[in-house]
Amino acid sequence: MNYKIRAARKEDCKDIARMIMELAVFEKMPDQVKISYQELERDGFCQNPFFECLLAEVSDEQISKCGHTVVGYALYFYTYSTWKGRTVYIEDLYVMPEFRGNGIGKSLMSKVAKIAVEKQCVRLQLSVLDWNSQARDFYAAKGAEDLTDSQGWHFIRFDGLSLDNLVKEAPQD
Amino acid sequence: MNYKIRAARKEDCKDIARMIMELAVFEKMPDQVKISYQELERDGFCQNPFFECLLAEVSDEQISKCGHTVVGYALYFYTYSTWKGRTVYIEDLYVMPEFRGNGIGKSLMSKVAKIAVEKQCVRLQLSVLDWNSQARDFYAAKGAEDLTDSQGWHFIRFDGLSLDNLVKEAPQD
Repeated sequence: MNYKIRAARKEDCKDIARMIMELAVFEKMPDQVKISYQELERDGFCQNPFFECLLAEVSDEQISKCGHTVVGYALYFYTYSTWKGRTVYIEDLYVMPEFRGNGIGKSLMSKVAKIAVEKQCVRLQLSVLDWNSQARDFYAAKGAEDLTDSQGWHFIRFDGLSLDNLVKEAPQD
Repeated sequence: MNYKIRAARKEDCKDIARMIMELAVFEKMPDQVKISYQELERDGFCQNPFFECLLAEVSDEQISKCGHTVVGYALYFYTYSTWKGRTVYIEDLYVMPEFRGNGIGKSLMSKVAKIAVEKQCVRLQLSVLDWNSQARDFYAAKGAEDLTDSQGWHFIRFDGLSLDNLVKEAPQD
């Protein structure tokens, strides 16, 4: 399987939006996706982008059943540890089912790691669902630590009404 | 208790570094802190900063036992959900013990929420240790969802050797 990993361009956002939906279907929550390709264009390709994205692209000879040559993506951004400093966080890592088993996911993740280390990041982080044993085993085999299991870290989210309520309590300037 | 919440400036990084260490002592992991105030200056006050920070400051009359007027901080950055879009993430939220119970932590968090919503963020996220029941109860009382409990999300981290190994596997350009 010949493929290349390259940085996403603004005109790739329709492909990215398509694969975001495919991933959400796999995760059994397709109705949760509210993002549009226009928002991806706005937020990823501005002066201070909210994310960066790598794509896996195959040649025209290996085009997918549905006519796609962009067959995987890694969407990531930079976060910060007040103990260790710069960190990269992979939000999504996805390869279309018919292209799996060719090392594309591993290449995408490794390439993100390489870019991050070049930017002096000392950590690469991501999240995984507890029932996704295939992904959990993959990360564990590569030496990653599950911080929820080992240290007891939990994710907390405010959105909708709980976020509105926080905002209402903000002190006046 | 009179205090004001304001954006941190570069010259506040020594105070921020001091409180990062105080928080790590509370979290029982002070030897984990490798960050210096110079790194905070470099990473938080550059063209594309890796984080933003709010401070809580009291008047000179209410100066702390050790002579500080900067008595709390919220350090945060922007992340991205491929389902919902812009998100703010609070990495650290801290108030010095002798100043707790005055609503300073709540004001810091609410002010981050306000700034984030003004930037069109639709989520505020953070992490908490499972044994920190005081913090967990505080977030739950404000309507936050624990995504580790409700959906099974786990934190995964690569660093040190496991990160080096990922980088070695990266495809050549």
